[in-house]
Amino acid sequence: MIETVTVIGRGRVGAAMAGRLAERAVDVRDEGDADVVLLCVPDSAIADVARGLTPGPGWIGHVSGATPLAALDPHTRRFSLHPLQTFTRTRGPEQLDGAFAAVTGESEEAIAVAREVAQLLGLEPFELADDRRALYHAGAAVASNYLVTLYRIASRLFEEAGAPPEALVPLMERTIENGFELTGPIARGDWKTVDAHIEAIRQARPEVEPVYRTLAEATAP
Amino acid sequence: MIETVTVIGRGRVGAAMAGRLAERAVDVRDEGDADVVLLCVPDSAIADVARGLTPGPGWIGHVSGATPLAALDPHTRRFSLHPLQTFTRTRGPEQLDGAFAAVTGESEEAIAVAREVAQLLGLEPFELADDRRALYHAGAAVASNYLVTLYRIASRLFEEAGAPPEALVPLMERTIENGFELTGPIARGDWKTVDAHIEAIRQARPEVEPVYRTLAEATAP
Repeated sequence: MIETVTVIGRGRVGAAMAGRLAERAVDVRDEGDADVVLLCVPDSAIADVARGLTPGPGWIGHVSGATPLAALDPHTRRFSLHPLQTFTRTRGPEQLDGAFAAVTGESEEAIAVAREVAQLLGLEPFELADDRRALYHAGAAVASNYLVTLYRIASRLFEEAGAPPEALVPLMERTIENGFELTGPIARGDWKTVDAHIEAIRQARPEVEPVYRTLAEATAP
Repeated sequence: MIETVTVIGRGRVGAAMAGRLAERAVDVRDEGDADVVLLCVPDSAIADVARGLTPGPGWIGHVSGATPLAALDPHTRRFSLHPLQTFTRTRGPEQLDGAFAAVTGESEEAIAVAREVAQLLGLEPFELADDRRALYHAGAAVASNYLVTLYRIASRLFEEAGAPPEALVPLMERTIENGFELTGPIARGDWKTVDAHIEAIRQARPEVEPVYRTLAEATAP
């Protein structure tokens, strides 16, 4: 049973995790030994911080999606736990609720520890192989970061059309709520409308044309 | 005041609209004269259906995003009202709640009628110029249809990584809820991770590389 956790780093993720662990009556520390040391530092700092810590009887984990376990060398009692969520500084531990977490370990014991930490945090764990990490993280970036890009592009077209960008929000929410059912011109095979979109984009916002075209091709059955 | 509405066409949108108007105690008809005739037929059928109707003292409107008002010739008491939402057959009039609607008309009276119909339907109207329609509709397609595409692509990468695609849903929902705040490698200027994504995609799902690259470029500041 995990009773003490050292959380190193209090950025967006570290602050939410430390807050949640405290809510669950875990003894949360800023430094020193513990049942689990969680590195919530920038990806580029993980290896340095890990090397600076004496391998102890406890476990060490990082919370990066993209970083392999080898970054935790020379530690061998190690795991990773990546919360599949986007975090903001203005919210607290409740950001973890309902999210999944990718857990990676090199032994059943390591995976069991990672699962226990995930459950303490209120995350739904699933296992991820260390060598599939880049592909997994690319998928997460497509879903989250490029969703921001879509909104920005759509907003630019709306502004150019004199329509309010905030009107896009209920549409995007419902698209998710409806299980990503495809509607609209491409679903109907209405390429005349797609061509009209491209023509309008070319005249008003030519820089958007390549993205629109590439996504149209990727959407076509 | 609008007391009678003829709704022609009972597809996804027509069924939701007819249901909502009936809930609001409007006399909803399938054919014949009314205060307002709403054409909820496929875009390609609007002009034919409009030509087949005798211009009356009442108003006629279509609910297409992409179709200009001229498709309603020879009618002159005309408008359009496009609900900015994605509809499914398995849900009812409540699909209209919280959505916006683009209203277009050639006179103040026409716009006032369109606004009144929008409010009866429970939609939040905003005005859209007839000649900005293609740009507006392109923006809606980017936000909704290409969101489906992002999910499909991300799911494919997740499946390849052995991760559950449904884990993407809370991430995408929160990205919207957080006001489309950009996080992740591009926000951090971490192009090493972006390169690792591209390398992994190229090996596992090469067909995804062009979309990933185009969106990375569109996301970069």
